[in-house]
Amino acid sequence: MRTIKLLLAYDGTEFVGWQRQPTGISIQAVLEDALSRIEGGPVTVAGAGRTDAGVHAAGQVASARVALTLDGPTLRRALNAVLPRTLRVLDVEERPDGFHARFSAHSKTYEYRIVNGPVASPFSHRFAWHVPYRLEVARMQEAARLLEGTHDFSAFRSTGADVHTTMRTILRSVVECRAARGAGLVDIVLPGGTVLVYEVTATGFLRHMVRAIVGTLVEIGAGRMAPADLRALLDRRRRDAAGPTAPAAGLCLARVDYGEAPAPVAAQR
Amino acid sequence: MRTIKLLLAYDGTEFVGWQRQPTGISIQAVLEDALSRIEGGPVTVAGAGRTDAGVHAAGQVASARVALTLDGPTLRRALNAVLPRTLRVLDVEERPDGFHARFSAHSKTYEYRIVNGPVASPFSHRFAWHVPYRLEVARMQEAARLLEGTHDFSAFRSTGADVHTTMRTILRSVVECRAARGAGLVDIVLPGGTVLVYEVTATGFLRHMVRAIVGTLVEIGAGRMAPADLRALLDRRRRDAAGPTAPAAGLCLARVDYGEAPAPVAAQR
Repeated sequence: MRTIKLLLAYDGTEFVGWQRQPTGISIQAVLEDALSRIEGGPVTVAGAGRTDAGVHAAGQVASARVALTLDGPTLRRALNAVLPRTLRVLDVEERPDGFHARFSAHSKTYEYRIVNGPVASPFSHRFAWHVPYRLEVARMQEAARLLEGTHDFSAFRSTGADVHTTMRTILRSVVECRAARGAGLVDIVLPGGTVLVYEVTATGFLRHMVRAIVGTLVEIGAGRMAPADLRALLDRRRRDAAGPTAPAAGLCLARVDYGEAPAPVAAQR
Repeated sequence: MRTIKLLLAYDGTEFVGWQRQPTGISIQAVLEDALSRIEGGPVTVAGAGRTDAGVHAAGQVASARVALTLDGPTLRRALNAVLPRTLRVLDVEERPDGFHARFSAHSKTYEYRIVNGPVASPFSHRFAWHVPYRLEVARMQEAARLLEGTHDFSAFRSTGADVHTTMRTILRSVVECRAARGAGLVDIVLPGGTVLVYEVTATGFLRHMVRAIVGTLVEIGAGRMAPADLRALLDRRRRDAAGPTAPAAGLCLARVDYGEAPAPVAAQR
């Protein structure tokens, strides 16, 4: 038996989320079924982040123990041949025994996209939250920075979720304003609009934490709350005092860091 | 009665194309139904380009004769409130009587996107053709330029289409290599890959002409044909001598030119 690390990207729109569920098709189930067919026996995969229904990934990581002897590129090709086009294996590498996608991770980075402009592009609605009223980016940037550090994030999580502790450490929390025109893709931003990307890196996240933060940042950008109110929200630790939970479609698990040196890009060609 | 010009964008994946058809939902039908509800009577729209099933638009133009008196921004809001999210009205303006989206157009520009790399991003398959083998961009660029000018495009059209003449004038025909990472969108290009965009402006197009040209450019990029072979293909005027028709998903009607000065971007905010 050997341990493999799989780098994954998916369009989460039509999945019920990462985790296997009786109610619909999950990424975990589709991936386990594909791996089991190639292995010729049952394979269980562990995911670094348990993304919810409608949430995407550009750099999700999964680990599994397998007996199959295919090399990385061959296994990648075999998996992509049977997986749906909305789920792609970008890379397969062997790891030492004991490597676990979730428990070995140092940090995870999520990105949340907001399209801010009068009309939403028809190419953006699967991947971004359309906010038609004007957002003051500078206010959102100021507020986002206040979340860096170790805090009790009770105000920013889904109510009723049962966890050991609500303390989490955010390493980086920034809002960027990006232009998306002329970037090779059918434009997701129309004239008069911009894409705001909230990028957050943490050693761990509570359920719905990023989406609750984004809902609050939008309240701040719209002028309904002040940037400094974020501190008070953290202190009060009450979910109902913060902003609403932003829609799943805007969220993407961008990357998972294991303290490894990044692989040279050319190696994937 | 007054004449209006509508600027449209759509994700064509789930439409049967621009033109009203008994077999499924067309952009024309959805737009006419929405306009008729607001008008309180039947409205017919004319489109600048009759895009096929699966083909997208970032700047399609439609014209219609209406009695309704709503101003442009109000009509845009009313239409977007009833249209599906995959079809958006970007702008509505009044035009002099006699303006017709198709017959008044000076030229149309189409863009065709190819994702060239070992693995297709799960975010690209609706909007691009994935070519996994290496393409020599310089060869494709050389070939694309040879199509500029007035030629008989019989070799690059859908067989059996009945048209008055197969002569068409291409004003601009270029292949660009674009990087799409960090552009605000969930990346459509994975490490080791690039986006090639074929951009073509012409006073008129034959049915499937752009997709037939792209299929041939890919043959040239893959080394199966030489750039100079394009000239011979034009001269032979036989569809079966050229490359295959590229998939619809990569094609997008980018803009239609009426010889008008472009509107300032700020006006749409």
